[in-house]
Amino acid sequence: MFTNQEINLDILKKRAFNLRWASVPEGVIPLTAADPDFPCAPEIAEAINRYTSDRYFSYAPAEGHLFFREAVANFHVTKRNLNTKPDCVIAVDSAAYGIQMVCKAFIQSGDEAIVFNPVDFLFKYCVEANKGVAIPFPVPLQPDAGIDFELLEGLITHKTKMICLCNPLNPTGKVFTKAELEQLGNLAVKHQLIILSDEIWSDIVFAPNVYNSIASVNEAIQQQTIIVTGYSKSYGLAGLRVGAVIAPNDILFEKLMIASGHQSTVHGCNVLAQVAVTSALNECEYWLQNFVAHLTNMRNICVEGLNKINGIYCPSPQGCYLVFPDITATGFTASELQTILLEKAKVAVVPGLSQWFGERAAGHIRISFATSDEIIQESLYRITKAMSNL
Amino acid sequence: MFTNQEINLDILKKRAFNLRWASVPEGVIPLTAADPDFPCAPEIAEAINRYTSDRYFSYAPAEGHLFFREAVANFHVTKRNLNTKPDCVIAVDSAAYGIQMVCKAFIQSGDEAIVFNPVDFLFKYCVEANKGVAIPFPVPLQPDAGIDFELLEGLITHKTKMICLCNPLNPTGKVFTKAELEQLGNLAVKHQLIILSDEIWSDIVFAPNVYNSIASVNEAIQQQTIIVTGYSKSYGLAGLRVGAVIAPNDILFEKLMIASGHQSTVHGCNVLAQVAVTSALNECEYWLQNFVAHLTNMRNICVEGLNKINGIYCPSPQGCYLVFPDITATGFTASELQTILLEKAKVAVVPGLSQWFGERAAGHIRISFATSDEIIQESLYRITKAMSNL
Repeated sequence: MFTNQEINLDILKKRAFNLRWASVPEGVIPLTAADPDFPCAPEIAEAINRYTSDRYFSYAPAEGHLFFREAVANFHVTKRNLNTKPDCVIAVDSAAYGIQMVCKAFIQSGDEAIVFNPVDFLFKYCVEANKGVAIPFPVPLQPDAGIDFELLEGLITHKTKMICLCNPLNPTGKVFTKAELEQLGNLAVKHQLIILSDEIWSDIVFAPNVYNSIASVNEAIQQQTIIVTGYSKSYGLAGLRVGAVIAPNDILFEKLMIASGHQSTVHGCNVLAQVAVTSALNECEYWLQNFVAHLTNMRNICVEGLNKINGIYCPSPQGCYLVFPDITATGFTASELQTILLEKAKVAVVPGLSQWFGERAAGHIRISFATSDEIIQESLYRITKAMSNL
Repeated sequence: MFTNQEINLDILKKRAFNLRWASVPEGVIPLTAADPDFPCAPEIAEAINRYTSDRYFSYAPAEGHLFFREAVANFHVTKRNLNTKPDCVIAVDSAAYGIQMVCKAFIQSGDEAIVFNPVDFLFKYCVEANKGVAIPFPVPLQPDAGIDFELLEGLITHKTKMICLCNPLNPTGKVFTKAELEQLGNLAVKHQLIILSDEIWSDIVFAPNVYNSIASVNEAIQQQTIIVTGYSKSYGLAGLRVGAVIAPNDILFEKLMIASGHQSTVHGCNVLAQVAVTSALNECEYWLQNFVAHLTNMRNICVEGLNKINGIYCPSPQGCYLVFPDITATGFTASELQTILLEKAKVAVVPGLSQWFGERAAGHIRISFATSDEIIQESLYRITKAMSNL
């Protein structure tokens, strides 16, 4: 199911942008943006085609279609142990826009939001787009290392409005334990902070690690939490631009709907994207389980292969289909190594630049392994050979 | 092709929101949001299904796929006599977001934009969302009446940054003549103002009226103009959320891309929506011509029928599938008449409220006629009967 034969490189070279196959020179393997090389589940395509065959694409409800909101709520009740319902769900044009919408609703000029360092750039980007200040909170690069909650509490001021949590954490691959989430949630409750919980990676967790949503820890924490999720990572739907925002608290939900711009039709979510996600959640769990089983193997191969290379230290991620090796001992900066790998190994990676992941990402590169055994093995062979010839 | 048999009310009652079939009580005819009752062209559904069958929905380019940008540019070169190219086109998540993006790019706090009165609310909404000031410019309610350009020039101050043009003009149905566009464009050039040209209705023009894009008048005007268009009106694709922004001026294009939020992936345009529009523009001109021919008949029936009712005066629109009759002589306000028609005629209309169309819309109601002969006749029968029994 996740074999090399399944991958259609001809199509990827036409359709996969954002630093991927259609954006790199011929011959380069792009282990860059987190987007799978595999086609989506067939059930998703069938659902889109069934809906399309009626030839009606009228205006959708501002909050999203009921079938979508039911599927998302049902998933969070049954798979995330969350006390929620369709009325708490908003269909959004990507998890990225979901983050922007939460910041628009709750961050005013000068407000502070705590943003882990390192983490994907979107939290900082959206906090600043709403004239807030992103306060960096250093977290370990090692996925299984603990969090310094005293340090975190020390960063909270009267201006702090929000804590931004990305769990599993892109790029380090940390999956937060229930005990960590409880400590974090209790801090938010104590200081009355919104928890923006980015759960886009929550399906991609490697056993024996177990995913918990911070909103499921207890009712008080749930009332402070807004979940943002998306379906590009788990189901390969990046180009459909679709995510969900879930706010169990009615007052927060209302503020989000006002901030959304959905009532004016300036923003909203494409109906076929909603159909695709509904199929993914209702029909494609088997597909996701097979995908995660395959990714577990790819992770092990990547970690083992990279750790054999002189100067590279690669911890094993607990979640996300990303490795984030420390490359400082190679003597190169992340940007230098990116260029070397692109030119000598014909493999594209993402450098750990401050603007992408925060300052603590320096000396690291990010590699996505959502591809076939053959492509991973070929990439490792090329990287190893290029590094040994330096 | 545009017969009553083509309309699938069962599907519309499940899918058509935003004040339409799925939002109104059973038995009510919703002549409200401008969204056709007819299914889309079969070629569009076929194109979506072909693309979907490959099962790849990877990240699209930030500006939109080349096939989309080529189709949009080619349309504007061949049908709008515009000197443009694919590099000038950005795929956007609806014309509404296109307007918001233009305002974000060019309106700063305190800047003024001239907004016709009456016109659809989105200009004012987006100018104010970017902390600008919308300066109302009164225009005639009668589609064939002229524009007072001296009055317009008198409204321009050192703070004025933009003129917002909706052509054809929703809700009055005015199609601007080339001479009017030249005067308007020359004013913008003289005062160095951006022309935000909302052309979402430009396909829906009734002979002998002819559509001209203000950008096609001359090169100087084109350099100041940003075209925003969408495909919900002409092709029934509102739920796909897709539009295009066209900026022939490179510097303006660059500012728009920065304002778009597309590079960060916070915003963007769904790939299937881009596929749908590409098919519409490349394959469905015959469909649009038939649709406009049908709409011409519907307009004539509406205008004739409404003018027979005591107290209603309905000018004939030159474009848009909307009539905007003056109902002041009925003695009711627009909101009162809306309620009467909903309760007694079971027909839903849009009242000419200031928040939807500006202050000069008072005493008017808006009726969309993008439906079948039978549904229009039934609506007119019901309205006539309800009004005669008052």
